[in-house]
Amino acid sequence: MAHRAKKIVIITEKLILPGVAQIIERCGGTGYTVVAAGGKGRRNLRPADRLGIVDEFTNVKVEVITSSEAVANRIADEVAAQYFADYSGITYMEDVEVLRPRKFAKDPEA
Amino acid sequence: MAHRAKKIVIITEKLILPGVAQIIERCGGTGYTVVAAGGKGRRNLRPADRLGIVDEFTNVKVEVITSSEAVANRIADEVAAQYFADYSGITYMEDVEVLRPRKFAKDPEA
Amino acid sequence: MAHRAKKIVIITEKLILPGVAQIIERCGGTGYTVVAAGGKGRRNLRPADRLGIVDEFTNVKVEVITSSEAVANRIADEVAAQYFADYSGITYMEDVEVLRPRKFAKDPEA
Repeated sequence: MAHRAKKIVIITEKLILPGVAQIIERCGGTGYTVVAAGGKGRRNLRPADRLGIVDEFTNVKVEVITSSEAVANRIADEVAAQYFADYSGITYMEDVEVLRPRKFAKDPEA
Repeated sequence: MAHRAKKIVIITEKLILPGVAQIIERCGGTGYTVVAAGGKGRRNLRPADRLGIVDEFTNVKVEVITSSEAVANRIADEVAAQYFADYSGITYMEDVEVLRPRKFAKDPEA
Repeated sequence: MAHRAKKIVIITEKLILPGVAQIIERCGGTGYTVVAAGGKGRRNLRPADRLGIVDEFTNVKVEVITSSEAVANRIADEVAAQYFADYSGITYMEDVEVLRPRKFAKDPEA
């Protein structure tokens, strides 16, 4: 019953979550998971942060599971095109094996 | 010292976390990590949510690392059997390489 | 534009996050993401926890994406050497495909 799928992960600023969510839906993602995140990247190093860690959770980690690699790439491309010139972010993809693919039953991309 | 293991991830409603935790232990998982999560899936779309994102973190993302694929499958099967008719959820598995397998030392399934 | 990279994940006690962050930077990591986490492992089972789940999020899940497996291993080794005798923790590595490697542009290890 298991099947291979792609997990696409977008870590970016919380501010743009509504826009990212819209892109996910428009590109064919059928759901996503959001987790509050903090951290430090090259692009959001401000002088005051250089010696310490960033405590505030002003980022989000958004995950989308999709059986379509095309959907995953479309989401990554659109998020980058719309936001990554102005906002900090990284997008990566992982292979996953969905054990309970309930949500994929009517996936038009499946 | 590294060894390959399975990471099983269960994203579901916070409400059933205690039951999920019991299943993990009963099935031979020796630990788990829980993160608060929000998001949107096909099954928890209520009319009021359709245009916006869901802000409240009413879901959990539970991760179990196990050296036994049988344990991973047993956890996935039991969680689905007990809860996924009534609660929203997805379960997937990933390959990981445990670099510091301290917690696996006495794993009966190893 | 995609390229393969390593994601190293350290799940440990929140208390030592500042030290872990310093190790990441010293070892050549160019950014990291932190998520608050709870859970249960063999090493942090106290008598009061044995029957219930641990609700408080006193752990952190730290992720580092790096194009250098050497950097990943160095981070894992140093964190374990400095902390895992006294603090609960696990470190694992996953293969990821970075779709938008903006943050890697000036990665000295790339």
